[in-house]
Amino acid sequence: MLIVQKFGGSSVANAERIRNVAGIIAESFLYGNDVVVVLSAQGDTTDDLLEKAAEINPDPSKRELDMLLATGEQQSIALMAMCLEGMGLPVVSLTGWQVGIRTDAHYGIARIRRVDTERLRRELDKKRIVLVAGFQGVNKFDDYTTLGRGGSDTTAVALAAALHADRCQIFTDVEGVYTADPRKVPGARKLEEITYDEMLELASMGAQVLMNRSVQLAKRYGVELEVLSSLVRAPGTKVKEVTRNMEEMKITGIAKDDKVARVTVRKVADRPGSAFRILNAVSKAGINVDMIIQAASQGEANDISFVVAQADAETARKAVADRQAAIGFESVAVDTAIAKVSVVGAGMMSSVGIASLVFEALNDEHINIQMINASEVKLSCVIDAASADRAVAAIHRKFFES
Amino acid sequence: MLIVQKFGGSSVANAERIRNVAGIIAESFLYGNDVVVVLSAQGDTTDDLLEKAAEINPDPSKRELDMLLATGEQQSIALMAMCLEGMGLPVVSLTGWQVGIRTDAHYGIARIRRVDTERLRRELDKKRIVLVAGFQGVNKFDDYTTLGRGGSDTTAVALAAALHADRCQIFTDVEGVYTADPRKVPGARKLEEITYDEMLELASMGAQVLMNRSVQLAKRYGVELEVLSSLVRAPGTKVKEVTRNMEEMKITGIAKDDKVARVTVRKVADRPGSAFRILNAVSKAGINVDMIIQAASQGEANDISFVVAQADAETARKAVADRQAAIGFESVAVDTAIAKVSVVGAGMMSSVGIASLVFEALNDEHINIQMINASEVKLSCVIDAASADRAVAAIHRKFFES
Repeated sequence: MLIVQKFGGSSVANAERIRNVAGIIAESFLYGNDVVVVLSAQGDTTDDLLEKAAEINPDPSKRELDMLLATGEQQSIALMAMCLEGMGLPVVSLTGWQVGIRTDAHYGIARIRRVDTERLRRELDKKRIVLVAGFQGVNKFDDYTTLGRGGSDTTAVALAAALHADRCQIFTDVEGVYTADPRKVPGARKLEEITYDEMLELASMGAQVLMNRSVQLAKRYGVELEVLSSLVRAPGTKVKEVTRNMEEMKITGIAKDDKVARVTVRKVADRPGSAFRILNAVSKAGINVDMIIQAASQGEANDISFVVAQADAETARKAVADRQAAIGFESVAVDTAIAKVSVVGAGMMSSVGIASLVFEALNDEHINIQMINASEVKLSCVIDAASADRAVAAIHRKFFES
Repeated sequence: MLIVQKFGGSSVANAERIRNVAGIIAESFLYGNDVVVVLSAQGDTTDDLLEKAAEINPDPSKRELDMLLATGEQQSIALMAMCLEGMGLPVVSLTGWQVGIRTDAHYGIARIRRVDTERLRRELDKKRIVLVAGFQGVNKFDDYTTLGRGGSDTTAVALAAALHADRCQIFTDVEGVYTADPRKVPGARKLEEITYDEMLELASMGAQVLMNRSVQLAKRYGVELEVLSSLVRAPGTKVKEVTRNMEEMKITGIAKDDKVARVTVRKVADRPGSAFRILNAVSKAGINVDMIIQAASQGEANDISFVVAQADAETARKAVADRQAAIGFESVAVDTAIAKVSVVGAGMMSSVGIASLVFEALNDEHINIQMINASEVKLSCVIDAASADRAVAAIHRKFFES
């Protein structure tokens, strides 16, 4: 069996953790598997390098930043290789360019174009454990690029797809994907499996287990993922296409995202295309808009509200404010004291009654719903931030604990 | 003019030093030169990485060690690039493989096979300052190699040779090559120029300015070197072929090497080939023997002494001791309390009287000469370590201060 394993920065933060991970790798290898391992930079390495850079130039080019950051993962693979060598195992470490990860030229947020697996295959044929520096590749100029946040997950999935791996295991510091955040909801339980779409919704809803990009890639290439802990030996959660029968539970999990903000444009002139002009202004600033609500206020003017990531809120506000004359409105304001609580489940909306259960749970807690958004796989409610944890717990009780 | 500049680890140890070096680079560039800069890893980076490795595996493979160590120089070039970018200058950083430094496969002590200058030329044609990671290259398997001690000097000279550079400047923390160690001999003065052979002798004699390998490379390809300070703006010392006229001073400098040891084999059987068998045993252990002296002792047995680097002394002793029966001797011992003092000057030996001046200086100080070795460019005396500084000062006075 060909297995791709990925370990994040905290899993290789120091010598002791490296030894722990080496044990997991060795076990997989000694059971007769071909093992490809993707590693992130150790612990705070990337932050330390960013700090060093900032001291020299607060606004360095992304090319040179990638040149600098790529060293972190290279150090991880070399150290892990030494650890496995010390255990007497055959191993070779490879950086992004050595392993043939070719990307586009967007430094800092590069996308993988292709993986030349020739070297990888050659090393696997020699029965070596192959350690690959995550998060990095090279563009057509042979310059180092990095893949952006969660890039090592993306590397792992891309390698698994290119090698047609039997398994792609993402080791993290949690034991899997839960029905809700287990630190907040004591009754939360680990899911055995979850579909790609459910995982995508949970990820974008704030469950920080897997980055969406790697899940999308896994879905596109049919790579079965497993999310599991590098510290606790226990089965994790499998992310794959699941065919559910009709009797199965419709809700997979509940997620909270409090890194959101609501932008409200007040008294928008009631003429055709106003909403479009507002959303176009935001979109042109490169910002994704999540929920939109148009509420009738007094007379001929409406309020239009939409939800964006908190980090983008000020940019979004400015983008709209800059076009005040063209759009026609009175004022635009940002509210960051909100949270988005979502219930996720494949085919959820085909089952009536789920929405009303959610509303009932929130009503029981006297939590006011400000905005609602529903799709085939999720139902999201915007509520005030202070009530978010209470809301998640209440919904979780309704669906999972009765 | 095409200039190659090399800055060592202490010259780029922190943000302030990086800014200082950036100033030197910028000046050269703004005067209209094509500038290629070779950098070492920052300050203690290499030692820190070695320590990290040792914590995980006290005896890692050299391949993985090179993979780890190569990151240090990569960080240096990225940070320097950011600094020059901040000054508004066009710059690009390149690692060993990007710059086309192809080496043999001897990890840790790789030798440069060739330099593919295509990328370098392309970047220079774009009028960019090119920053190159020193100390590293890739072998024919596309695996990272490092060049061993003083490797960044070697990188600089190799690039200068490949590009037919007009100048190759080696910036260090001293102002140039001196007639003797200026920290020890107050009258020592900076040399304006020195031949490759003189520099080679001074380097191997313990003057830690340039590693021999880079000087040999410079000599072979006729690369004119300049050794100068990155902190003090002053002309340094040029290393090149110099045609001296007959009236010129014959002595270039005086060096002390106290990292040596004498191995003495006592009462060696007086039969043909004994000396050969001893030196062969040492040579097979991979150790260079410097001076050899065969002194008649009592009767039919001689004592044979030779000088090796202190680090090799115990290995040399053991190599000889292991062959005691085959060689035939009574005992073998190591003495580390010695030092080698050398006077260096091209064509020195064709001038009579130099040796006697050296002997006179030592005799004045009542310093006993244990061994003597002379060649076309140097005269070395082994004396007891405690007298070494006094010996250098005395010889220096004789030649330079009268």
